[in-house]
Amino acid sequence: MHPDRIRLPRLRDKVMSAEEAATLIHDGMTVGMSGFTRAGDCKAVPFALAERAKTHPLQITLMTGASLGHDADKVLSDAGVTARRMPFQVDASLRKRINAGEVMFMDQHLSETVEMLRNRQLKPVDMAVIEATCITADGGIVPTTSVGNSASFAILAQKVIVEINLSMPLELEGLHDIYIPTYRPTRQPIPLVSVDQRIGTPAIPIDPEKIAAIVFTNRPDSPSTVLPPDLETAAIADHLNDFLMREVKANRLSAALQPLQAGIGTIANAVLHGLLDSPFQDLRMYSEVLQDSSIDLLDSGRMTFASASSMTLSAGCYERVMANLARYKSRLVLRPQEISNHPEVVRRLGLITINTALECDLYGNVNSTHVNGTHMMNGIGGSGDFARNAHMSIFVTKSLAKGGDISSIVPMVTHVDHTEHDVDVLVTEHGLADLRGLAPRERARVVIDQCVSPLYRDALKDYFKEACRRGGHTPHVLEEAFAWHTRFRETGSMLSRDMMLAD
Amino acid sequence: MHPDRIRLPRLRDKVMSAEEAATLIHDGMTVGMSGFTRAGDCKAVPFALAERAKTHPLQITLMTGASLGHDADKVLSDAGVTARRMPFQVDASLRKRINAGEVMFMDQHLSETVEMLRNRQLKPVDMAVIEATCITADGGIVPTTSVGNSASFAILAQKVIVEINLSMPLELEGLHDIYIPTYRPTRQPIPLVSVDQRIGTPAIPIDPEKIAAIVFTNRPDSPSTVLPPDLETAAIADHLNDFLMREVKANRLSAALQPLQAGIGTIANAVLHGLLDSPFQDLRMYSEVLQDSSIDLLDSGRMTFASASSMTLSAGCYERVMANLARYKSRLVLRPQEISNHPEVVRRLGLITINTALECDLYGNVNSTHVNGTHMMNGIGGSGDFARNAHMSIFVTKSLAKGGDISSIVPMVTHVDHTEHDVDVLVTEHGLADLRGLAPRERARVVIDQCVSPLYRDALKDYFKEACRRGGHTPHVLEEAFAWHTRFRETGSMLSRDMMLAD
Repeated sequence: MHPDRIRLPRLRDKVMSAEEAATLIHDGMTVGMSGFTRAGDCKAVPFALAERAKTHPLQITLMTGASLGHDADKVLSDAGVTARRMPFQVDASLRKRINAGEVMFMDQHLSETVEMLRNRQLKPVDMAVIEATCITADGGIVPTTSVGNSASFAILAQKVIVEINLSMPLELEGLHDIYIPTYRPTRQPIPLVSVDQRIGTPAIPIDPEKIAAIVFTNRPDSPSTVLPPDLETAAIADHLNDFLMREVKANRLSAALQPLQAGIGTIANAVLHGLLDSPFQDLRMYSEVLQDSSIDLLDSGRMTFASASSMTLSAGCYERVMANLARYKSRLVLRPQEISNHPEVVRRLGLITINTALECDLYGNVNSTHVNGTHMMNGIGGSGDFARNAHMSIFVTKSLAKGGDISSIVPMVTHVDHTEHDVDVLVTEHGLADLRGLAPRERARVVIDQCVSPLYRDALKDYFKEACRRGGHTPHVLEEAFAWHTRFRETGSMLSRDMMLAD
Repeated sequence: MHPDRIRLPRLRDKVMSAEEAATLIHDGMTVGMSGFTRAGDCKAVPFALAERAKTHPLQITLMTGASLGHDADKVLSDAGVTARRMPFQVDASLRKRINAGEVMFMDQHLSETVEMLRNRQLKPVDMAVIEATCITADGGIVPTTSVGNSASFAILAQKVIVEINLSMPLELEGLHDIYIPTYRPTRQPIPLVSVDQRIGTPAIPIDPEKIAAIVFTNRPDSPSTVLPPDLETAAIADHLNDFLMREVKANRLSAALQPLQAGIGTIANAVLHGLLDSPFQDLRMYSEVLQDSSIDLLDSGRMTFASASSMTLSAGCYERVMANLARYKSRLVLRPQEISNHPEVVRRLGLITINTALECDLYGNVNSTHVNGTHMMNGIGGSGDFARNAHMSIFVTKSLAKGGDISSIVPMVTHVDHTEHDVDVLVTEHGLADLRGLAPRERARVVIDQCVSPLYRDALKDYFKEACRRGGHTPHVLEEAFAWHTRFRETGSMLSRDMMLAD
């Protein structure tokens, strides 16, 4: 019965099948599950719950750290189990239900979900379902490849179901640093002052009596689906490297830069890969998720330490890390997402943050979430936690999407996740716009010159010219502001006949 | 020569006229002036500089804490002196130049200006011009009715001009708490854990050799222009009081609530006045500016302590406070605006923040700055510093403006300063929308039911209905999203003939 995995003997009679554990979850419950960007998610209970719902229909509010792997969000929403969902998701099937108004989705800053729970501003968590490496002798839960919101879910929930994943090496113990902010009104400063500092405990401390079930699993995380760098993402990485080198030369940054944060995804991964061939040294990462590129930077010696809330790796990289945990553990730490993303720590450490924009406008406002202003893609994730308090907030995007039918640089974004106030630098494959210290009209000129695709440049210039003729601090032609988007909706392309002829 | 005002004897030969001091400011300089919401601004040098520009034209980048009094922004921009301006202003004449694209205005979060200066991401301050109560024996500058950015301007500038205002009582000494965050990479936590704590020094510590000129003045601050509560602002205050009482009853807040922040202006002032007749006790304020209402709450005993960066009072209230400083000093503190507005402290203390929206949309996105999406009103000020990290972020607005020709609740805001993620509660004279934990479609229904004026309610319902028919997580009809705004631009009213008939 794996005494090394359940070290508190009296908990061993809580072991049961996923099917039995799933019966502890009832209609109307709020369930907090582990899982952050496909890492450390539960591999058994969600599926048993979906199966059970076929004969015993039930609906729950599902909270997680961030996205789940193994199609868990698809399976749960297809089974009609997910009535409400927060704070993030990436599943095509769930997304469809969200956009149809069938699932109520709360798109939240990732640092805020447990803060709101603790303040009793969200309905309390009835049941936590947490993937673990093991349970310690005093009943503490050692997470696996992510911490996410697991610690606070387990601490705040009435009852906890633990999934012990036997595929996770016991050497994961000691990788995590569980620190939960003290309660108000006597909340103390978070003592973290450097990326590699440990301020908490290696396991989630809970009353073991709350553990209602223990389920064994043996399935690895879903591998990352990030694509390798291409010509455009490589060009983005080059522009950013050149810019950072100029900042070092101007004595605004040291050769170690500032601690880096990078959002998940193909572009951010490519940008980090670009640092492999850079002159920077002793890089550090303070991010929410580590991708292959972070591990490659550690392996190369160019990065000395990485702090995050999860590791989301390709199959090969995952195996490499799991097989060499002893070697990585001195240079890696996984923290609760409210600490990895905490405004206090982000401002104090002075991060350079690199996040992906879905679209960006003339003035530097960024849409990270809504396709054509209405349809949710994934969610804001941690980008707002980081961009708002960064030392330098960088957004990256390819200038075009859908083979040129969409320009990522538009006259006005159809949804704002990051305001002009929180966007310092914008990069596309064409160039880099340094927006720091510029007024809106100045920003517009730099964005047009540096970032927009030549396919759309003249049209954007014309828009800006007419907008300036009308006047204002942030000139716009309101009745034309979304003309590209409505054209896309009607014709399948933002390009007009004129724009195509001009090209 | 006022030895009690200049206690470091060797500085006394720096005394000169404002006209002489103004000659120290040259074309192309970046000048950091004291002044925050009309309080503690310089009363002589700005005017001497504008006068001098008539014969010796020059242009500067002007940074302040926030807005200036005594029409200084008008005088300086009319004289062509202000080429660039940050981070905030409220002057009609300057506003006109900003909206014409003649003055480059950087609308910044108030906590970030000195952070960016310190990070060398803005051009350095050449000259600081700081109003003072006195200069201490070791050359420290004691501010007057605001701290704002004065401390960092004086510390970072090459040279400092001090305006000693003899109308400011010497008893102001000891009111201020000057704390500047330590430098990276060894930045320490800001040790502030309660509203009434002092963590710094009573004077701005600078090298006295940097003091290039001392000018005496004798003019009080411009009085506040806030209007008294009216029926609508009183209704907003009542809705908010009722809501807060329900939160106390539900055990989500104590009777002391959480520390309060309130933006400047008539509505926020009325809301705070409403607390005079509330059942709450031992209230505390952690805000950027104190208005009459804060002083009245202290006088009534309902509030025990108030922390801010400035005091902007009516003439009568100003006299009362100045004549009784000894009595108020134990219950008041003025801090640098980067500390009053610091994300680290705001999140730690758990503020209830109350800020004014210019317009708000169906989904809770707030425009604080841009009239009809293009024309700058004042600036975002500290609202983003507070709303983003608040325990509870509340926005208030009257449902109508311009006698009903403008609805403050619109299908889509034309400019976003605060995203749906950072808006918990919206209040108009009609009611209160508690948006916490709601998905966008749910929020829209609450906003329509509670907040919009009956004049516009049916039209907003119709918009939402058609938007939902088209689908999406955040349903919109893009080509109609700004129809009310374009109608206002063309006809002077957002009301259509149909809407008027329906009413």
